[in-house]
Amino acid sequence: MRLDLMSRDAVAARIASGRRGVILPLGSLEPHAGPGALGTDAICAGAVAERAAERVGGIAAPALAYGMVQFHLGAPGCVSLRPSTLSALLFDAIVSLGMGGLTRVLLLTGHGGNAAPAQAAIQEVMAEVSLGRLRFPAPVSAKLRAWWEGPRLAALRRELYGDREGFHVTPSEVAIAMTVHPALAVPRDAWPAWRAVAHDPLHDLGGDRHEDAARHAARFPDGPIGSDPSLATAEDGERLLDAAAQDVAEAFAAFEAAPDQSAR
Amino acid sequence: MRLDLMSRDAVAARIASGRRGVILPLGSLEPHAGPGALGTDAICAGAVAERAAERVGGIAAPALAYGMVQFHLGAPGCVSLRPSTLSALLFDAIVSLGMGGLTRVLLLTGHGGNAAPAQAAIQEVMAEVSLGRLRFPAPVSAKLRAWWEGPRLAALRRELYGDREGFHVTPSEVAIAMTVHPALAVPRDAWPAWRAVAHDPLHDLGGDRHEDAARHAARFPDGPIGSDPSLATAEDGERLLDAAAQDVAEAFAAFEAAPDQSAR
Amino acid sequence: MRLDLMSRDAVAARIASGRRGVILPLGSLEPHAGPGALGTDAICAGAVAERAAERVGGIAAPALAYGMVQFHLGAPGCVSLRPSTLSALLFDAIVSLGMGGLTRVLLLTGHGGNAAPAQAAIQEVMAEVSLGRLRFPAPVSAKLRAWWEGPRLAALRRELYGDREGFHVTPSEVAIAMTVHPALAVPRDAWPAWRAVAHDPLHDLGGDRHEDAARHAARFPDGPIGSDPSLATAEDGERLLDAAAQDVAEAFAAFEAAPDQSAR
Amino acid sequence: MRLDLMSRDAVAARIASGRRGVILPLGSLEPHAGPGALGTDAICAGAVAERAAERVGGIAAPALAYGMVQFHLGAPGCVSLRPSTLSALLFDAIVSLGMGGLTRVLLLTGHGGNAAPAQAAIQEVMAEVSLGRLRFPAPVSAKLRAWWEGPRLAALRRELYGDREGFHVTPSEVAIAMTVHPALAVPRDAWPAWRAVAHDPLHDLGGDRHEDAARHAARFPDGPIGSDPSLATAEDGERLLDAAAQDVAEAFAAFEAAPDQSAR
Amino acid sequence: MRLDLMSRDAVAARIASGRRGVILPLGSLEPHAGPGALGTDAICAGAVAERAAERVGGIAAPALAYGMVQFHLGAPGCVSLRPSTLSALLFDAIVSLGMGGLTRVLLLTGHGGNAAPAQAAIQEVMAEVSLGRLRFPAPVSAKLRAWWEGPRLAALRRELYGDREGFHVTPSEVAIAMTVHPALAVPRDAWPAWRAVAHDPLHDLGGDRHEDAARHAARFPDGPIGSDPSLATAEDGERLLDAAAQDVAEAFAAFEAAPDQSAR
Amino acid sequence: MRLDLMSRDAVAARIASGRRGVILPLGSLEPHAGPGALGTDAICAGAVAERAAERVGGIAAPALAYGMVQFHLGAPGCVSLRPSTLSALLFDAIVSLGMGGLTRVLLLTGHGGNAAPAQAAIQEVMAEVSLGRLRFPAPVSAKLRAWWEGPRLAALRRELYGDREGFHVTPSEVAIAMTVHPALAVPRDAWPAWRAVAHDPLHDLGGDRHEDAARHAARFPDGPIGSDPSLATAEDGERLLDAAAQDVAEAFAAFEAAPDQSAR
Repeated sequence: MRLDLMSRDAVAARIASGRRGVILPLGSLEPHAGPGALGTDAICAGAVAERAAERVGGIAAPALAYGMVQFHLGAPGCVSLRPSTLSALLFDAIVSLGMGGLTRVLLLTGHGGNAAPAQAAIQEVMAEVSLGRLRFPAPVSAKLRAWWEGPRLAALRRELYGDREGFHVTPSEVAIAMTVHPALAVPRDAWPAWRAVAHDPLHDLGGDRHEDAARHAARFPDGPIGSDPSLATAEDGERLLDAAAQDVAEAFAAFEAAPDQSAR
Repeated sequence: MRLDLMSRDAVAARIASGRRGVILPLGSLEPHAGPGALGTDAICAGAVAERAAERVGGIAAPALAYGMVQFHLGAPGCVSLRPSTLSALLFDAIVSLGMGGLTRVLLLTGHGGNAAPAQAAIQEVMAEVSLGRLRFPAPVSAKLRAWWEGPRLAALRRELYGDREGFHVTPSEVAIAMTVHPALAVPRDAWPAWRAVAHDPLHDLGGDRHEDAARHAARFPDGPIGSDPSLATAEDGERLLDAAAQDVAEAFAAFEAAPDQSAR
Repeated sequence: MRLDLMSRDAVAARIASGRRGVILPLGSLEPHAGPGALGTDAICAGAVAERAAERVGGIAAPALAYGMVQFHLGAPGCVSLRPSTLSALLFDAIVSLGMGGLTRVLLLTGHGGNAAPAQAAIQEVMAEVSLGRLRFPAPVSAKLRAWWEGPRLAALRRELYGDREGFHVTPSEVAIAMTVHPALAVPRDAWPAWRAVAHDPLHDLGGDRHEDAARHAARFPDGPIGSDPSLATAEDGERLLDAAAQDVAEAFAAFEAAPDQSAR
Repeated sequence: MRLDLMSRDAVAARIASGRRGVILPLGSLEPHAGPGALGTDAICAGAVAERAAERVGGIAAPALAYGMVQFHLGAPGCVSLRPSTLSALLFDAIVSLGMGGLTRVLLLTGHGGNAAPAQAAIQEVMAEVSLGRLRFPAPVSAKLRAWWEGPRLAALRRELYGDREGFHVTPSEVAIAMTVHPALAVPRDAWPAWRAVAHDPLHDLGGDRHEDAARHAARFPDGPIGSDPSLATAEDGERLLDAAAQDVAEAFAAFEAAPDQSAR
Repeated sequence: MRLDLMSRDAVAARIASGRRGVILPLGSLEPHAGPGALGTDAICAGAVAERAAERVGGIAAPALAYGMVQFHLGAPGCVSLRPSTLSALLFDAIVSLGMGGLTRVLLLTGHGGNAAPAQAAIQEVMAEVSLGRLRFPAPVSAKLRAWWEGPRLAALRRELYGDREGFHVTPSEVAIAMTVHPALAVPRDAWPAWRAVAHDPLHDLGGDRHEDAARHAARFPDGPIGSDPSLATAEDGERLLDAAAQDVAEAFAAFEAAPDQSAR
Repeated sequence: MRLDLMSRDAVAARIASGRRGVILPLGSLEPHAGPGALGTDAICAGAVAERAAERVGGIAAPALAYGMVQFHLGAPGCVSLRPSTLSALLFDAIVSLGMGGLTRVLLLTGHGGNAAPAQAAIQEVMAEVSLGRLRFPAPVSAKLRAWWEGPRLAALRRELYGDREGFHVTPSEVAIAMTVHPALAVPRDAWPAWRAVAHDPLHDLGGDRHEDAARHAARFPDGPIGSDPSLATAEDGERLLDAAAQDVAEAFAAFEAAPDQSAR
């Protein structure tokens, strides 16, 4: 179920029946190389969240299309939230949802740069509870997960793309975006040629790329980071989306169903 | 065009051709009475923005589904950003878009409670420019507008609903949501009966309802504020959406095309 | 009554008698063209607040002489608060007054640029109440109003100045300042000549001028925005002050006397 | 000269002639025992600032009537700014004044609780300069001083009130307030009887009273802290005001005239 | 070398010779079960940083003894920084060090709860650079690492403690603390008995424990999380400290020596 | 006792026995002229705190090595916290310690620039208590003191160094640092020659030097401010440390033992 299409009473009824979970997808608006869509990360996170929610009768909140992507500041069409802004927003979201009874919030990110601000937001909520400054109808729990974490998807990514999956503009995310928006499917040669990335002791290759925009552009002028988006197809996308949704659905269902009091 | 489906290069090409505008729709996630969708405001603002952009070859950014709606805090499914959070987010969005060359930003809200934080965000950007702490490739301008401002729509709302249009859960917004998501169409008697609102010197009836959630719920237990959403139909919605899109398109086109130097 | 000249016990006695209102005037320190006083806005708001309070036995707090006026940053003698600073200050003021029992706070602005931060401050107070993080001896209500809103004054401005009233350095505000501080009366030719303002799709003409200081100075090098301050006289000022005070007194009295529980 | 009554051009002319100073008086709105005026601190700081400015042809900005007075929160009519709010406000004020050319800012407080936030504000401005994030037309200097610091006034206070001067609701400040607002003169027995204060290792007796409002009220239920306001007369007030103004004028003149480059 | 024992000139000389690195150890002040020292995390991070710096002629800054440990708020002697506070502090530290020429900052944490705020701080610095609001004498790079990351230490922990190493109050950290402060060595039976931890879908077992203090205390009343601190000895501590220092020294040396321009 | 070496239970036992005090030493990382150690201020504050605690069986928390020292920004090895950052950190520290039962917090600074942010932090804690937003197991009190305040030390400083003690890089602090870290003892001619400082109406000579880094470096190119660190010896340091510790111990003991309810 999509939260934005539900009524307050429908949400209330679910809570009354003991279901308190919600998936909140997080994206970004950043360059995705050549023809890649700026909104790829939100498209993927949103699609995985919706499908995962459908599988287990859960709720998916509207995707936040804006994320922390400072290393692309200045790129046409890019929007980057400061880490403190993203943390404040997610703090407010978790607090609001919790006050209304949705006390199990799974933040499902499609963008690595959102991870630290999201974790910090969860810590900030818990700190306020520990300080006695916020109270909820039931204990609030929030967790962060990327949509690509999970065994089914990991296996499929390896099978489909091997070492060309990479870290940004991955064929996986491009494929899912093509499935969701068929107009995004483009000829393979529209993408920049693949390049391997060498280890760089100054920077991580993963989600948190700690360098400013000028240096990032100098290191990765084409956009991809070790990925080959030309491999992506909408057909792959459908399989990938399904695998990711199964992984997320399973984790979300366990999270939602866990008892509040988990003392031994 | 939807910004999230465009590539960086496509945005860059438009900017090179002199088109620097973007519409950023703002919504909320709040109760909309009886069967009303929590996300009605973002659905409407997003749909008007997209259709207006189409009319004039402009760009619509992804709708922000989360807004300032403190008077509904505690309602199941509601998310409210603190005013300072929403201001920070829009500050970041305007700054990012501007740095990337989209220097004409029209904030199109579907929710009155977003107005003050949005205006404050624009002021904050301009203050930073005035202080010499931010620089852009071209002068940045940002404006706030609600999707329901404009002569065509005003006339149509009067024609269709007269004094039953009201201020919250209006038949206009409900109708547009039905057009965009046909599943939202429900039988008329699913809605609460209409009630007029009396003038209250403590509170405004318009977009900025300055009372806390408990008092708001006591004043408007059913949800609607002088509105009769049972009048809404998907057919009306199509007409309303079109009228609003024409109004917004016209204003946006003038805003985008205005010369930067407007000294006499 | 002026709050700053009252004792705590005198305020407490009023509250015990059921009167909980206070008018808090907001101004700015910004250029007012030629010989215009930098503090015109606070002078006017303060004078209207005091006279309105006298009419209905209400309380006027000291005027805040500093406001949000970023579009004049860099002008000699100008002080501009960032929107977030002004919001924080008004948040603190409303909270303090409310905790002490003055739970009906009318923010009376003499400067349009203060409007958004003031509205955001009211929202922020209400959000804290809705979150359960602030408690008051009685429900707190706060409203924003400009001193020039109201039917008596509107009629008089039209009568006296017609289309030469304009938006900044208006003859009305100049006239009131002359009444309050007779030394401010200057020969008519001390003022810049009148110029009409053309519509500009980039900017609003009203209170919220969303452009940085450099562009603002380029558009309005003389200072006035469609206004002709040379029309102002101290005699007009007395009439204008009285009309504004009547309008505000009426609104404030209704606001102060409204019952807390306004549920239907 | 009062800054709020000056025009931009008049300020500009002074700056062009090499005079860059301004006195910014800081007050509070807090109980002052029995019949004492809530605004005593701003009244005194403002009056001393104006008279000191007159003596040396300097500029006095409008008094800030609101200060940091958390230990009186909950008292009817009291307004307390959080320390961070007051710091933000004074940061903005110093930055604005400096950008407009008034680069020597003397913060003249009439309330001890404002000292730490004011000092922190000055540090914050200098930090931004040191970080290269703010630039001014001339080097900005700001200093904090209380109006009662200075040899003439110190001698007169001792002469007039000896050990009954105390720390809050002092006869000095009450006397000056009576001079400025004659209606504040009341019969001596309107004030609470004098009590000495004992040393308390938990708290300071001076300006910074670091205890919350409940404990403060328990320690000083009458209001005065070692002071005997019943000694105050308007005649004393005139002498005190003059002595304080001489002290401040001398310090301000030296501050304004000091060369910018003070390297040995 | 310890930065706090160096002179400015000694640091300047190193920078002139091309060495720009510094290790900044991060700890916490939180319960460590039974006799465990509150400051264990800072003791370990500090000791590893100093020894690693010695190995490669690098600089170790003073350990920050205070960290983000909200899940222990209320425990006697515990200090927890809010995530936003810790981020602000590390932002300031990285900026200051960078402005002074130490542009390679390795944040070496001894506490998992510091990770998200530290990552967010690094992002915030880079965002300011990307926005053009901070400039440095050389490009600034900052990285986060826990002292226990690295192959030598991982092997030794497995060898010494196997599955009794756990996540909090680990025998490794206790052993290192005993080495550094021999008085911390206590009889084995002073520690609580070992308990395995079961998987809990609500919470992570690792560094980021996203639950409030009350729930955390209910889950782990003894303190340890899957760890058996009774296994710790000062002798082990010496070996562990050395292994960790080798791992960190290697990573730090590579980080410090990496060329600034790392474009392919 | 060092808090970081104590266990939670040991702290709890002390609190149960009625001892609620803790000394929190504050330092800085800033140039100390010629061979002077960057960390001198934290070394001194920490050493005095530990020895004072030993004298009276009190607790000393780990020294905060980072302080507000904006006037040295850009110096190699310097770290400066913004005033707002330092206030936030000390707010968190006082709140955490208080929630855990250590409700008498003595902030012992070794650096004058920390004073205003520290005072503001104490005010901010008290404001939250006054607003009803924080609750503690016992009333929280916090005080700021510099380690050099107190009669014994004042006499000894005069005796040893007379008018060559000065304000920064004082022989006293250098001597104590030499006692704590013997390697810091250097030949007398390693220090810059002594220079007197002239009064400067723009700036204070004491702890709060309100000028930016460039102007500060121009005024004091050698580093010392009226001090002659060449006089310092480790032997002096031992005497000075002892005198300071006695002074602080006495004040701390009185502060810790004072009854909570100090109403007359």
